[in-house]
Amino acid sequence: MAAKSSAPGENMLWGGRFTGGLDPLMVSYNESIYYDRAFYAQDIAGSIAWARANKNRGILTEHEFSEIERGLNAVKEEWASNKFDIKPGVDEDIHTANERRLGEIIGKDIAGKLHTGRSRNEQIATDMRLWLREQLKTIEGYLSDLLKVIAARAESEIEHVMPGYTHLQRAQPIRWSHWMLSYGMAFATDLQRLREVVKRVNRSPLGCGALAGNPFNIDRDAMAKELGFETLIYNSMAGVADRDFVVETMQWGSMLMLHMSRWAEDLIIYSSGEFNFVKLSDAYSTGSSLMPQKKNPDSLELLRGKSGRAYGQMAGLMMTIKGIPSTYNKDLQESVEPLLDHVKTVGDSIQIATGVLSTLAIQPESMLASLTPDMLATDLADYLVRKGVPFRETHHISGRCVALAEKEKTPMDKLSYEQLHEIDSRFDKDVVEMFDYQRSVEMRSASGGTSKSSVMEQIKVLKQMLEGN
Amino acid sequence: MAAKSSAPGENMLWGGRFTGGLDPLMVSYNESIYYDRAFYAQDIAGSIAWARANKNRGILTEHEFSEIERGLNAVKEEWASNKFDIKPGVDEDIHTANERRLGEIIGKDIAGKLHTGRSRNEQIATDMRLWLREQLKTIEGYLSDLLKVIAARAESEIEHVMPGYTHLQRAQPIRWSHWMLSYGMAFATDLQRLREVVKRVNRSPLGCGALAGNPFNIDRDAMAKELGFETLIYNSMAGVADRDFVVETMQWGSMLMLHMSRWAEDLIIYSSGEFNFVKLSDAYSTGSSLMPQKKNPDSLELLRGKSGRAYGQMAGLMMTIKGIPSTYNKDLQESVEPLLDHVKTVGDSIQIATGVLSTLAIQPESMLASLTPDMLATDLADYLVRKGVPFRETHHISGRCVALAEKEKTPMDKLSYEQLHEIDSRFDKDVVEMFDYQRSVEMRSASGGTSKSSVMEQIKVLKQMLEGN
Amino acid sequence: MAAKSSAPGENMLWGGRFTGGLDPLMVSYNESIYYDRAFYAQDIAGSIAWARANKNRGILTEHEFSEIERGLNAVKEEWASNKFDIKPGVDEDIHTANERRLGEIIGKDIAGKLHTGRSRNEQIATDMRLWLREQLKTIEGYLSDLLKVIAARAESEIEHVMPGYTHLQRAQPIRWSHWMLSYGMAFATDLQRLREVVKRVNRSPLGCGALAGNPFNIDRDAMAKELGFETLIYNSMAGVADRDFVVETMQWGSMLMLHMSRWAEDLIIYSSGEFNFVKLSDAYSTGSSLMPQKKNPDSLELLRGKSGRAYGQMAGLMMTIKGIPSTYNKDLQESVEPLLDHVKTVGDSIQIATGVLSTLAIQPESMLASLTPDMLATDLADYLVRKGVPFRETHHISGRCVALAEKEKTPMDKLSYEQLHEIDSRFDKDVVEMFDYQRSVEMRSASGGTSKSSVMEQIKVLKQMLEGN
Amino acid sequence: MAAKSSAPGENMLWGGRFTGGLDPLMVSYNESIYYDRAFYAQDIAGSIAWARANKNRGILTEHEFSEIERGLNAVKEEWASNKFDIKPGVDEDIHTANERRLGEIIGKDIAGKLHTGRSRNEQIATDMRLWLREQLKTIEGYLSDLLKVIAARAESEIEHVMPGYTHLQRAQPIRWSHWMLSYGMAFATDLQRLREVVKRVNRSPLGCGALAGNPFNIDRDAMAKELGFETLIYNSMAGVADRDFVVETMQWGSMLMLHMSRWAEDLIIYSSGEFNFVKLSDAYSTGSSLMPQKKNPDSLELLRGKSGRAYGQMAGLMMTIKGIPSTYNKDLQESVEPLLDHVKTVGDSIQIATGVLSTLAIQPESMLASLTPDMLATDLADYLVRKGVPFRETHHISGRCVALAEKEKTPMDKLSYEQLHEIDSRFDKDVVEMFDYQRSVEMRSASGGTSKSSVMEQIKVLKQMLEGN
Repeated sequence: MAAKSSAPGENMLWGGRFTGGLDPLMVSYNESIYYDRAFYAQDIAGSIAWARANKNRGILTEHEFSEIERGLNAVKEEWASNKFDIKPGVDEDIHTANERRLGEIIGKDIAGKLHTGRSRNEQIATDMRLWLREQLKTIEGYLSDLLKVIAARAESEIEHVMPGYTHLQRAQPIRWSHWMLSYGMAFATDLQRLREVVKRVNRSPLGCGALAGNPFNIDRDAMAKELGFETLIYNSMAGVADRDFVVETMQWGSMLMLHMSRWAEDLIIYSSGEFNFVKLSDAYSTGSSLMPQKKNPDSLELLRGKSGRAYGQMAGLMMTIKGIPSTYNKDLQESVEPLLDHVKTVGDSIQIATGVLSTLAIQPESMLASLTPDMLATDLADYLVRKGVPFRETHHISGRCVALAEKEKTPMDKLSYEQLHEIDSRFDKDVVEMFDYQRSVEMRSASGGTSKSSVMEQIKVLKQMLEGN
Repeated sequence: MAAKSSAPGENMLWGGRFTGGLDPLMVSYNESIYYDRAFYAQDIAGSIAWARANKNRGILTEHEFSEIERGLNAVKEEWASNKFDIKPGVDEDIHTANERRLGEIIGKDIAGKLHTGRSRNEQIATDMRLWLREQLKTIEGYLSDLLKVIAARAESEIEHVMPGYTHLQRAQPIRWSHWMLSYGMAFATDLQRLREVVKRVNRSPLGCGALAGNPFNIDRDAMAKELGFETLIYNSMAGVADRDFVVETMQWGSMLMLHMSRWAEDLIIYSSGEFNFVKLSDAYSTGSSLMPQKKNPDSLELLRGKSGRAYGQMAGLMMTIKGIPSTYNKDLQESVEPLLDHVKTVGDSIQIATGVLSTLAIQPESMLASLTPDMLATDLADYLVRKGVPFRETHHISGRCVALAEKEKTPMDKLSYEQLHEIDSRFDKDVVEMFDYQRSVEMRSASGGTSKSSVMEQIKVLKQMLEGN
Repeated sequence: MAAKSSAPGENMLWGGRFTGGLDPLMVSYNESIYYDRAFYAQDIAGSIAWARANKNRGILTEHEFSEIERGLNAVKEEWASNKFDIKPGVDEDIHTANERRLGEIIGKDIAGKLHTGRSRNEQIATDMRLWLREQLKTIEGYLSDLLKVIAARAESEIEHVMPGYTHLQRAQPIRWSHWMLSYGMAFATDLQRLREVVKRVNRSPLGCGALAGNPFNIDRDAMAKELGFETLIYNSMAGVADRDFVVETMQWGSMLMLHMSRWAEDLIIYSSGEFNFVKLSDAYSTGSSLMPQKKNPDSLELLRGKSGRAYGQMAGLMMTIKGIPSTYNKDLQESVEPLLDHVKTVGDSIQIATGVLSTLAIQPESMLASLTPDMLATDLADYLVRKGVPFRETHHISGRCVALAEKEKTPMDKLSYEQLHEIDSRFDKDVVEMFDYQRSVEMRSASGGTSKSSVMEQIKVLKQMLEGN
Repeated sequence: MAAKSSAPGENMLWGGRFTGGLDPLMVSYNESIYYDRAFYAQDIAGSIAWARANKNRGILTEHEFSEIERGLNAVKEEWASNKFDIKPGVDEDIHTANERRLGEIIGKDIAGKLHTGRSRNEQIATDMRLWLREQLKTIEGYLSDLLKVIAARAESEIEHVMPGYTHLQRAQPIRWSHWMLSYGMAFATDLQRLREVVKRVNRSPLGCGALAGNPFNIDRDAMAKELGFETLIYNSMAGVADRDFVVETMQWGSMLMLHMSRWAEDLIIYSSGEFNFVKLSDAYSTGSSLMPQKKNPDSLELLRGKSGRAYGQMAGLMMTIKGIPSTYNKDLQESVEPLLDHVKTVGDSIQIATGVLSTLAIQPESMLASLTPDMLATDLADYLVRKGVPFRETHHISGRCVALAEKEKTPMDKLSYEQLHEIDSRFDKDVVEMFDYQRSVEMRSASGGTSKSSVMEQIKVLKQMLEGN
C-alpha cells in the first residue's frame, strides 16, 4: 500500500536529497500495485463477498450490492483481458486501484460504500490467502505428477543394480529403483506436509477490520463460506498481523527444495564422465560457447541453485517479521514479492524435475562396471555370522580379505578358495556364492531394503501416500 | 562418530601443522561422544529391541539375548548414576562407548554379536528420533501451560481497555484480553503444528542398515512397536539420509520463537516509562550496575534475542544439508549439537514466557490515560454510515473533525455539538455518545472482535485448540 | 545463460509432463536475458576490449576490429534507446543477444571471430564486476549524502536534550545530536567498509577462458586497464568460479540495512503517540483507509522490513554457493537477480532514509517532558563518589533515594534536602545542583560522551571518515 | 549478565509454572558466567587500565590503585590455574565474579571503588573486542600455514595434469597445481580481508559508560593505548550498542567456510572410487562399523558440514540484532556463545584442512586416465582459428569431429587424418599435434592460465598476498 505523497515539509533545512515538495522515490518505494496486481481476482472475489455480507446486514441495499457486483465483475474482466489501466502514483495497491475503477464504472456514491467497516489490513491478508490456496493446489498436482513418474520408473527399471554410496564412497550394491524411491519418500512426505500447510493457509481474516474487529456485526462465517475458507481466524489482531501462512509455505518450499538439491547433486555426479550412470535428455542440457564437446546438466544445476533462492526468501521474510510489534506494520508488505517468486520457483522446479526424470537415459552397463567385489565385504562377513561367528570378528576377517585382495592387486572375488580358507578356516567352498551382486541385493529383503520384494512394497507405500493415506 | 586416528602418512612432505603420526585435533574435531551421550538411554533401548529382534530371527540365542539385555541395562544404570567412564579417544560416539562397555561386562564373544547386520547410520537416526519425540512431548506440556495462563488471564482481566496499535500508532481501543489472545492464537497454532511434527519424527529407521537394508530379514515392525514408533521409514536409503525431522522441528521452533519475539517486543514497549502499561515482576527483571533507578526487562529481551539463536540453528542446518549427496554423509553429524540446543532454547523460553505472563502486573490507569478521543474517529465515521452516508465520505468528514480538534488544540470529544454540526449537518446530538471507549469496543461484536462476547468466544476456541480440536 | 532446447528424447516412457519435443518451461527456467540485459553496456565494453586485445595479438585484423567496434557501438545504441529487439528463445543471455545482433549488423564472418578464445564464463563475471563497481560508486554518493545530513543536523540541533535509553528504559539524559551521531558512526563505518569491498569487486576475470586460461596469450593487463580494473584475478579457475564479490557486497549491504533497521526502529518508537519525540514529514508517512486520524511511519517500517529482504538475498546466495564444486556451475546464475535487487534496495533505502531525516520535525518539549529526575540517580551517586564514598556504596545510597521518592510518590528532585541528608549525611546542600539535566549531559565530557564538546568532536570525526581518513 | 532473582510477585494469580518466590530457571536463562568466563584475562586487563586511568584523574589514590592491581592479578592467577570458585547464582557474569572476588581479596572498601563511572555495557564490549583481536591473530597464523602448504605443493607437483571441470563435466586439461591455487587465491583473499576486519574489531569502547559517556573525564586514549587498541569508538551510544565487529567476523568466517566447503566438495568427489584422483591419509579418514572395505573422507565432510554451522551463527546473530532499539539491549548477550563457537570452528577447520592437504596422496595415473581426447576439442577449433577460420565456424567443425568420434565409437585422437580432412579441408597433417594434453595446458600461457609459467606466476602472487602486498 503506497504513500500519500504530499509535500515533504516546506523547507529542507538539512540539505537532503530533493528540494521540491514531492519525493517520487518514496512513491515507488512504497507502492505495491506492480506486484500485488497478481491478486486482482481474489481482491474482487473478497469485495463481492464483503458487499453481499453488508447487504445482508442492511448496510447496503439490494440495488447497491448488485451495482457493486456488476462493477467489480467489469473491473475483473479488464484485468483478465489485460485492459486495466493502472494510474501511476494514484493506484497505490490493488485494493485502491479496484475501488478507484469501480467508482468510475458505477459512480462514487455507491462505490464509496464498499469499504464500509473494512480495512486494507484485512483485505491484503484475504487476497494473499485465497491466491496462495489456489497456487498450492496447483503445486500439489505437480508434485503428484513427479511421484507418479518415480513410481512408474521404479517399477519398470527394477532389474538394474548400481553401487550404493555412503560418504560418496562405494558401499553396497543397490537397485537403481531403490535410489529413485529414496527421494520418492522425501517428496511424498513433502506432499503430506503440503496438505497440512494448506489447512493453515485456508483460514479467513475477512471481517477483522484494521485490528479491532467489525463494528457492523458482519457475518464472517458466511463470507468465509462464500470464499471457500475452512474456518475463521478467531482474533482480529492476529488476523491482520499474521504472515505465518507465508512463512510456513516458505519453510515447506525450502525443505522441498533441499530435497531437490540433494537429488540434483546425485544426478550431477552420476552424469559426470567418471560415473556415467545417466544421460540427460538434450532438452535439459546445454552446450558450451567455447568447448564443442560439452553437454552440461544445466537443469539440475539450476534446481540445486534455486534451492538457495527459495531458502533466501524464507530467511529474509523470517527476519522481516522478527521483532516487529503486533498487528499490521508496513514491514509486512515485504512478504508479497518473495511469496510470488517462491511459489513460482517451487512450482517450476518440480515440473523441471519431472521433465528431467521422465527423459533421463540410464546407462546400466556403466552402473555394473562401477560395482566392485569389495562392496560385498559385508556379505562375506554375514556369511560367517550365519555360521555363528560374532559379527565383530567377521568384520575383522572380512577386512583381512579386503586387505589381501588389495595387496595382491586382484579383485576380491578372484581370491582363491584356498586363500580365503587360509584367512579363516570357517570359509567353506560355498563362500564364492557371496560374490554375486544380485544375490547381495536380494538378501536385503526386510522392509525398506533393496530386494525386489521390498522395492515393490515401497512403490505401494508411495502410491498410498499419493492418495493421502 | 569419530575418527580412526592412525598415522597421517609417513612423511609430511608439505610442511603441515604436525609432524608426528597422529593429529589429536582430528580426534576432537570428529568425535561426538561429549554431546551424543545425551542419547544414552535411547541408544540402549534401541539395542535391546535390536537384540530381541535378532533373537527372534535365530541370529542370537535366548541366552545371548538375555546376557545382552542384562549388560545393556547395567550400562544404562552407569550413565544414569553418572558413573560411566568415557575413554577419551576410544569412545568416539555413544554407540561405540555402549558396545565397548557391554563387552567389558558380558564378554566380547556375546557382545560382538550385538551389531550383527546393523550400522551406526541407522542407530544414530533411531536415537535422535526417540530422544526428540520425548522432548517434544515435554515441550507440548510447556506450551499448554502457557496457553492456560493466557486463557485464565484473558478471562479474568476482560474489563480492561487499552489502545490498540497499528504501525505502532494508536488506532482503536481494544481489550487487554484481546491483545493477550492475539498471541494465544499464534501459540495455539504452534501447538497444533507441533502435533503434526511429532508424527514425522516418530518414524522408525531401525533396520535400514548402512544404506541398503537388513540382510537377516529382521522384523522392523516388531522393533518399531517395542520402541513406540508410529510407523516405519519405508526406504532404507531415506532412513539413514534423512534429517528432515530435525529441520522440521527447527522450522517449527523458529516460528514459535518469532511469535515469542513479537510478543516480547510488545511487552518491552509496553513496559517503557512512556507507555507504562505493564510492570514485570522482579523475578524477570534486572537492575543496572551503574544506574540505581533502572529496572530492565531482561527476560523479554532474552526471549527476543534467543529467537535469533533458534533461527540460526535452523539456518545453519539447512545449509549443511543443502546439496550433499544422498544417504549418510558425515556432514549430518552437524545436526546433533544444534538440535540439543534448539530444544533446550525453545523449552526454556516457553517456560520463561509463562513465568513472565503469570507474574506481570498491568497498569489499567496508564492504559486508559493513553487512550485519546481521536482513536474514535472511525466510530464517528461509522455513525454517519448508519445514517446512509457513503463510507468514503464519512471518512473524509471524520478527518475534518480530527483536523479541527488539532487546530483548536482540544481533544476531539471536547468539540461542541455545534462545531460538529457545522462540519456536517447530519451529526445529531446523539453524536456525543460516540466518544465512549467502552461503547467502541463493544461495537466490535462480530466474531474475532474486541467486544466482551467475542473475546469470550476466543477463549473458548483457544481451549478447544488446546485439547486438539 | 539459457538452454539449447532440442527434443527431450523421442519417447517419454515415464509419463512426464509434456509429450512433444520441446519443453518451453525449460527455456524460461534457464534463460537470463530478461535480467542480465542490465549489463548490456558492460558486456559491450568488455567485448570491445577483448577484440582490441585480440587485434594486438594478430587474431583480428585492424579492419575486423574496427568493424566489430562499430557494430558493438551500434548494438549499444539500440539498447540505450530501448530499440533492441530480444528474440525470445534465441537470445538466451546478454552475450548471445549481443553477438547475434552484431552478426546481423556487420556480418557473421567477422562477428564470428569475436568470441575467439573466450567463454561466457569469463564474460558474465566481467560484466557483473563492471556493473557492480559503478553501482557501488553511486551508493557511496548516497551514503555520503546521508552522513552530511546527520552532521549538519547534529551541529544545528545540539542544544536539545532527550532521554537516553538502555533496554528501552529511560537511563540517562543525552543530546538528540548524540543519538543521531550514534548511527552516524555506524553508517560511516559502512562507508569505510564499502571502499574495501569495491577494491575486491574491481578485479578482472577477463582472459580466464572457460576455466583453463587463454590460449592466444591475450594481454590481460591491457584489457584490465582499458576497463578500469585495479588488478587481475590471477587464477583462471578462480576467475570463473568466484561470486565472492557478490556475497561480500551483500554481506556489506545486509550490515548497512541492519543499521537502518535499528535506526528506523528507534524513530518508529519515537514517533508513537506515547513518546512523540519526532514527527515525520507527510511525504514519508501515509494515512489509513479506515481510520481518519492515523498517520503512519510507512517509510521507516519499509526500511526496517527491507533489511530482511536484503539479508535474505545474501542468505540465499550463500546457500546457493555452498558446496558446489569449483569453477563455473550453472547454480551461479542464481547470483544475478538477487544482486540486481539488492543493489536497488540498498541504494533506494539510503536515499529514503536521507529524505526522512532531512524532513523530520523534532518535538523538543516532548523530549524534555519525558525526562524524569530518577534518570539523575547516577549523577547523585557520582556526587558522593566525588566526596570519596566508594561507588558501590553510592550506588546503594542513590538507590535508596529512588525508593524513597517512589514510596512518597514524589519526583526525586522534590525530595527535601533533609530527606536526602537523612538517607546519607554526606549529602550537602549543593546536592540539589545534581537535579539538572543540562548539567548531567555536560558532565559526560570524556571523548565520545554527550557533552557539547564531545558531540562537536564526533561531528569532526564523522567528517574525517567521510573523506576517507 | 544475569538476573537479580528476587521474588516473582506475592501471588501467582495466573497459575504459572512455579509457586515459590524464585524462578531458578530465570537464573540460568540469564546468567552468562559459564561462557563469558572465557574473557577473564581481558576483563582483568580492562579493569586495571580502568583503575589506572581513574587514578590519573584523582578518583583513586595511588594506594587504592596498587591494591586493585594486586588483587586483580591474584584473581587472574586463580582463573589461570583453574582455582577460581564460581558462586552459582551470585557470579552472574565475568565482571560481577571478578569484582566479587576482588572484594574478598583486598576488601570491599577499595574494591567498591573500581566500578566508578563504569558500566558493564562498556566492559563486555571491551572484553569481547580484546579477546577477539587475539583470536583473529591466531587464526591469521593458521591461514598463513595453509597458504604456505598450498604454495609449496603447487610448486612441487606442477608437472601433473588432470581434467578440469565445469558443470562437473570434463572440460579442458589443467595442472593439478592450478586447481590447488584456485583455492589458494580464495584463501589469500580471506587473509587480506581478515586484516581489514581486525582493524574494526580493535577499537576501544572503554569509557563509554552505560550509554552517555564518562562523567569523570577519563582519559580514553590512554586506556586504549594501554590495551593495544588502534583507536576509539567516538560515540558512547555506538560503543555499547555495537556488535558489528562480531557480525563482520562471522561474515568473514562464513565466507572462508564457503571456500572450505567447495574445496572439500571437490576433494570428496576426487576421492570417490570413480574419480580416484586423491587418497586421504588414514589420519583424516574413518572406517565403517558395518562395511569392512570402507574408507570415508570424514574430515572433508565435516569441513563441508561445519560451513553450515558457521553460517548459522552469523545468520542467527544478524537476526538477533535486527530491529532492536539503539544502545545496549539484553538481546546482545546472545552474541557471545555463537562467537566463541564460531572462532573455534573456523580455527579448527583451517588446521584440519592444512592437515588434510599436507598428507593427501595424489594418483597421477588416475588423473591421466580420466583425460579424454574430446577435451581437446577447443584446441582443435583453435587450430583452425590460427588458420583464419572464424571461431564460430571452427566451433561447429570441431563439434562435427566430436560427433564423428562418438558415432565411430573411437576416441577423437584416433580419427584418421583423412577423416578430419574430410570434415574440413583446412585440417593439415600437423593437426594430430593438437592431441597432446601437455601441449594443451602449455598453450594457456596468458596470466592466470594453466601453463607452467602462469602457474609459477600465481605462486609468486600468492606469496605476496601472504606478506600483505
